[in-house]
Amino acid sequence: MKPSGIVTLTTDFGWEDVYAAIMKGVILGIHPGATVVDISHGIRPGDIRQGAWMLEESTRFFPAGTVHLAVVDPGVGGARRPILVCTESSFFVGPDNGIFWPLIEAAGEATVIHLTSDTYFLPKISRTFHGRDIFAPVAGHLARGIDPFDIGTPIQNPVRLELPTVKRSKDAVVGEVVRVDRFGNLISNIRRRDIGCLGCLTGLKVTIGGLTIRGISGTYSNVPRGEMLALLGSSGYLEIAVNQGRASALVGRDGDSEGIPVRVSPA
Amino acid sequence: MKPSGIVTLTTDFGWEDVYAAIMKGVILGIHPGATVVDISHGIRPGDIRQGAWMLEESTRFFPAGTVHLAVVDPGVGGARRPILVCTESSFFVGPDNGIFWPLIEAAGEATVIHLTSDTYFLPKISRTFHGRDIFAPVAGHLARGIDPFDIGTPIQNPVRLELPTVKRSKDAVVGEVVRVDRFGNLISNIRRRDIGCLGCLTGLKVTIGGLTIRGISGTYSNVPRGEMLALLGSSGYLEIAVNQGRASALVGRDGDSEGIPVRVSPA
Amino acid sequence: MKPSGIVTLTTDFGWEDVYAAIMKGVILGIHPGATVVDISHGIRPGDIRQGAWMLEESTRFFPAGTVHLAVVDPGVGGARRPILVCTESSFFVGPDNGIFWPLIEAAGEATVIHLTSDTYFLPKISRTFHGRDIFAPVAGHLARGIDPFDIGTPIQNPVRLELPTVKRSKDAVVGEVVRVDRFGNLISNIRRRDIGCLGCLTGLKVTIGGLTIRGISGTYSNVPRGEMLALLGSSGYLEIAVNQGRASALVGRDGDSEGIPVRVSPA
Repeated sequence: MKPSGIVTLTTDFGWEDVYAAIMKGVILGIHPGATVVDISHGIRPGDIRQGAWMLEESTRFFPAGTVHLAVVDPGVGGARRPILVCTESSFFVGPDNGIFWPLIEAAGEATVIHLTSDTYFLPKISRTFHGRDIFAPVAGHLARGIDPFDIGTPIQNPVRLELPTVKRSKDAVVGEVVRVDRFGNLISNIRRRDIGCLGCLTGLKVTIGGLTIRGISGTYSNVPRGEMLALLGSSGYLEIAVNQGRASALVGRDGDSEGIPVRVSPA
Repeated sequence: MKPSGIVTLTTDFGWEDVYAAIMKGVILGIHPGATVVDISHGIRPGDIRQGAWMLEESTRFFPAGTVHLAVVDPGVGGARRPILVCTESSFFVGPDNGIFWPLIEAAGEATVIHLTSDTYFLPKISRTFHGRDIFAPVAGHLARGIDPFDIGTPIQNPVRLELPTVKRSKDAVVGEVVRVDRFGNLISNIRRRDIGCLGCLTGLKVTIGGLTIRGISGTYSNVPRGEMLALLGSSGYLEIAVNQGRASALVGRDGDSEGIPVRVSPA
Repeated sequence: MKPSGIVTLTTDFGWEDVYAAIMKGVILGIHPGATVVDISHGIRPGDIRQGAWMLEESTRFFPAGTVHLAVVDPGVGGARRPILVCTESSFFVGPDNGIFWPLIEAAGEATVIHLTSDTYFLPKISRTFHGRDIFAPVAGHLARGIDPFDIGTPIQNPVRLELPTVKRSKDAVVGEVVRVDRFGNLISNIRRRDIGCLGCLTGLKVTIGGLTIRGISGTYSNVPRGEMLALLGSSGYLEIAVNQGRASALVGRDGDSEGIPVRVSPA
């Protein structure tokens, strides 16, 4: 796979601190022609699951050959392995703690390489910032075109990530809210294909936090301003929203709606 | 107009979510050589007027041929049109909801094109994320050098935006606070030229929220630390500030000072 | 020194406002090939000391020939001089208010140039935004390869910055918390070399806010989850942390722990 020269960053570092910038300095030092793009630094500290959702939702929109660096790494300096995941279209570099698991599963075929060759690391490896000392330099070298197999040895047992599952019965599909966005939209883990032909004859209703929404809308402005709706969002997941308002303010406390059950059933 | 290769982003997406990054991925997929610059993702959700101010204040500092993408789009997926505005020096891509109106007015001459040719969109158009499916790909193609007239048809009636006006009488100019910045500076919509020769003989005073400031200062440190002042700010608008302090904390509640009247009259 | 084409930005502008983007527009207008990287815009308004720590911690990870632009400039438009600092490996552009002092000291040899040649400024210089009118254009020209001596005249007396010092006695080293990061880690100004052979025979203990930590750990996961530890952090400074928790929540109020004394002594 030919590298695109693009390196993306997804971390729990926030924007105030200098950690993300330090990684950019290291990448550009190795590959001055790299194009570095922030996906997000807003992952809650140590929240591997949130990091995995973000990568799954965004990385597929980048060109083939892009290197995606992810640093949500509460186990840094301990036993967890540094890895590189090569799928058909992309490289993923970061800790082996499950953050890449949904992408490995979705890829069908993926090669996972345990990063062992310190030739491609910074000369001095700290025990608390592998983002800077291992992942950023490896990303820089990959963006320049190094052979992945030169950096380590393939492994067969990357760490898996437990994600909330969608339960389907004859008369309902039940998932949960997995993400709340800036607009207060509640994004569930239920996909179009999970719903299948449930309610094909009768139409659907969505129940969440004691509230019921009838029908699936096409877009936010399909309902009057301030009214709640359900729709299949831009990433393909069922989403509960309020036209020009915040669904998260109606269902559970704002910013604290993750994990609330979402039930889809015939109307 | 020769494209500069630069694409800027101005949105209400915030930084935590992946929406802005997805747009960058799409742009770079179409034009790998693009330089993508964030103007701001901090516009209040759906606040078209705030977006318009930001574009007006910042885009003129970018080189000719830059593509400015703006996504504040509460009407996404409804009847509002996707448009491209071509001025003498720049391209603007986004929803036809008034966000570009001040720039169209200021440009004197501008061509507005209704984006209709889905050849330049993503293959599958969602009804909730035109930033990704229409605006980002069009921006990528424009940065690569496509002819604007290939993407749609010119229209004569872009949506206008009502902005607070400055009232001038014989003995006063009255505007209002339209923006509060991170320093707590209150930026009004009153320009140097609105003041004209008012107070040319006597000097000026500025009244805001029951407080009176005598004279217009040259810079913040012209008054003692902690003292209030009025000055013509770096963008040419009358601004109320406190030297090394926050004017917004004195006048109205912090972050909630927009719309407060500002009156300039002879001292 | 050959420019790397990279320009970094470190400011107290925040991310919501358009000020940082305006500077990027100016830089790219002068040098379209520049790679602009944000170090941080999260410095507290006017906090020169915080800006100095950030520059000291991050800029050394960028390639030689990088231009580092720093705008924390409460004295803008007053008597303070605009300067350029040239060290063996980097350029620093910004106000002469002490923000570059730790870097000048660390460099050993550095040339400081008072920026006086308005050929390299924007045509019209405001008195409130030298970041846009002086520093950004100078940074753009430096990234393109202009001779630093063409932009002004060397000076010998740049403003110094008072930083909290580390006190060493026979049986203790006492510093203070100088930075709290997003993880609630408390980073002190005590370095490995300050500790020297204190406690070489007995081991060390660290005292902070009435709490005592025995021993220096290698990484966060060396102690059980939720437990406090001290370690030599990735930048070489003694750091107090909680494994998967926030040390700042235990010691002083969160986000308000700067200045708290840190004492290292034999166990």
